[in-house]
Order: sequence, then C-alpha cells, then structure tokens
Amino acid sequence: MKKDPDCIFCKIAAGDVPCCEICSDEVSLAFMDISPLADGHVLLIPKEHCVTVDEMSADQAVGVLKHVPTLVRAVRAATGCQGVNVLQNNGRVAHQFVPHVHFHIIPRNPGDEFHFNWPAGSYPEGGMKELAEKIRKQL
Amino acid sequence: MKKDPDCIFCKIAAGDVPCCEICSDEVSLAFMDISPLADGHVLLIPKEHCVTVDEMSADQAVGVLKHVPTLVRAVRAATGCQGVNVLQNNGRVAHQFVPHVHFHIIPRNPGDEFHFNWPAGSYPEGGMKELAEKIRKQL
Repeated sequence: MKKDPDCIFCKIAAGDVPCCEICSDEVSLAFMDISPLADGHVLLIPKEHCVTVDEMSADQAVGVLKHVPTLVRAVRAATGCQGVNVLQNNGRVAHQFVPHVHFHIIPRNPGDEFHFNWPAGSYPEGGMKELAEKIRKQL
Repeated sequence: MKKDPDCIFCKIAAGDVPCCEICSDEVSLAFMDISPLADGHVLLIPKEHCVTVDEMSADQAVGVLKHVPTLVRAVRAATGCQGVNVLQNNGRVAHQFVPHVHFHIIPRNPGDEFHFNWPAGSYPEGGMKELAEKIRKQL
C-alpha cells in the first residue's frame, strides 16, 4: 500500500497520529474533522496515499465510497441536521489543503456558516455536444 | 427499479427526456449539466430513484461511485482544468434542487465563478469525542 511519510492523513491511517475514529476497515477510515465546518463534520479517506480522486482505481474508490450512505445516515441521526453536503476537493484551486484524498461529510442547517454560490451558466450553440464528445474520448 | 414518474432525472435515465450522455451502464448515468458552473460540469446519477444519498444501499452507491475516478480524469483531460470539486447535496438547506441523488463533477480554474467559504470551527473540550460516540452508535 502506497504511503507518503510526510502526509498527515497517511500518519493518521497508520495510527501514528491519533484521530477520533468513526469507523475503519482495511482500505478506508472515517474520522472527525478537528476543524469542523459544523458539528459532526466527518472525513472519509482511503488508507492508501492518493493525492486526488482521479489517481484512484475504480476498486479503490469502491472500497472507500461504499461507506458514504451509512456515514451520512449516521451523521444525520446523531446530529439531527436537516441536510448534508458530501464534498471532495481536488487541487488547491478547488480548496484542497491536505494532499491525500478526503471526502467531507458536512452537516447542514438553516442559518449555518458554510455557504457556496451557484453561478449556473450555459453553453453556446453546439458547445455542450462538442465538449461532451471530447470528454467521452478521454474515458 | 424504483422510479418517480414526476422526477426529471428518472425521465432522463429512462430516455424519455434527452440528455447529452457521457457514459452509462445498467445502474448509473453520467451526462452534461445543462446549466454548468463551469464548462465540462458533469452529473453522475443512479438510474434508480433515490432522493438523498443516505437512502442508497452500499451496493447502489458502489455501482454509481465506481465511475468517479474515471469521470474526473476524463473531465480534467478534456477541459484542461486545474482542479475539480466533487459535490453531492442532500436537502434544500444543502442546495439540493432536484430530488434525485446526483454527484456534481465541477471543473475548477483560477478566477472562476464558483466559490465557497470554509468557516472552520472547533469543539469545546470533550465535545468531539462525545459526538463521535453518538455517530458510531448510529452506524
């Protein structure tokens, strides 16, 4: 299993740095974010070192992401929150600060402090189809 | 497979409403968001109707989420974006507007229009451990 000796999440996954664990198995770990956006903010990570989600294989992703429904259910039940954002950031421009894949499970309630905008745009005539073709070619 | 006759994403999954498809299989569909936050914004959905991610079984989640790495790779390669947010919203308070689970794959670049804050807080003494115990009991 690939590890980065300087990575804080690798150290947590190895048990060398303590965390407040929610659950774990051979390939994944869920633990409390110590700087939560809301009470009950949980992080879900692969134990293997991957910087961004596109570095993961489908099997690696499955081993981690199968826990998302259960974790969201548990966070909702324990906190009584009205909603949840699942958010995973790739790259500094996308607000990734720890270079080891992590999925944020963020409880949401009316009037809470986490906000994002939604600047929905549109494509010029034919632009969406053309870009979709480019994406499909990269699959 | 559970369907909601009034759900736009169920209609798209059934082929009754057109979409600009990226890829699909028996249980999942990825297609272009027609109101993109950035060029190359893709939606990944289960074909079965589930309102929020916590309604999904682990198997359902796996069938959909195994495609995340490949899709993020393809979107990065096709658009040349510097980063990507993977975002899934549960509940109106969390900015969910279509009540059928969907994962946003959002390309990011410096100076783009999608923004969120990061109001990181902290727990009072003992508070994190106590809440983690409550969450674990709900697993």
